[in-house]
Amino acid sequence: MAALTDEQAELFRPGFASVATVNADGSPQLSITWVEWDGEHVVLNTTAERAKGRNLLRDPRIVVMAVDPGDPYRWVSVAGRAEITEEGADEHINELSLRHWGKDYEIPEGMTRLKILVRPERVNSYGLDK
Amino acid sequence: MAALTDEQAELFRPGFASVATVNADGSPQLSITWVEWDGEHVVLNTTAERAKGRNLLRDPRIVVMAVDPGDPYRWVSVAGRAEITEEGADEHINELSLRHWGKDYEIPEGMTRLKILVRPERVNSYGLDK
Repeated sequence: MAALTDEQAELFRPGFASVATVNADGSPQLSITWVEWDGEHVVLNTTAERAKGRNLLRDPRIVVMAVDPGDPYRWVSVAGRAEITEEGADEHINELSLRHWGKDYEIPEGMTRLKILVRPERVNSYGLDK
Repeated sequence: MAALTDEQAELFRPGFASVATVNADGSPQLSITWVEWDGEHVVLNTTAERAKGRNLLRDPRIVVMAVDPGDPYRWVSVAGRAEITEEGADEHINELSLRHWGKDYEIPEGMTRLKILVRPERVNSYGLDK
């Protein structure tokens, strides 16, 4: 397992990252989503019905990359395995919504929210102090 | 095959995008790199020795996602298959270097540059006019 430096962790603070998973047919899947760093994991939130959620329920391998919004030559990527839980997932998406949009999140009916925790197994970064 | 709208194509103009491929062990691989849109393809440049290049030589399936640097709620992603060529690849990386850094690119010895063209098979976008 790998830890993030303070500077690497800081890149997750604006709260957006690219997320790569693998589809059932073995092709790559890519999206951008809200993320945060809890001190041990990159944490994100999706649903069991979306491509990212479906993929991670089948194959938990994931890479998350945060790029400095002001400087694309400063980035950090974290590869690991998703730990997936429904517990607290509704509350978590609401916290993210309040932080980013300043209002409650309207969870569509028939969707199962998933909270995804990624403990870093491999970390790469560029443009950051060692 | 799918075409990009003018607004989707415009998101490739700042010249950076996230790129997802699949590693030999089936795990996802993610990086950020220079890209451009040539009117028909997303075009990027890597080497046969880097993870992205090695992966694409084995499995050409790729997703490229460009995000508005000023607004993470505006993005476009293009999924397709990499057409890979060494022809013109050195000149192409030099063009990208001149555009972004204003100087020639120093190609390390022992590296084989690859020019990657991705014709869109599936396009997703968010926050853009239809």
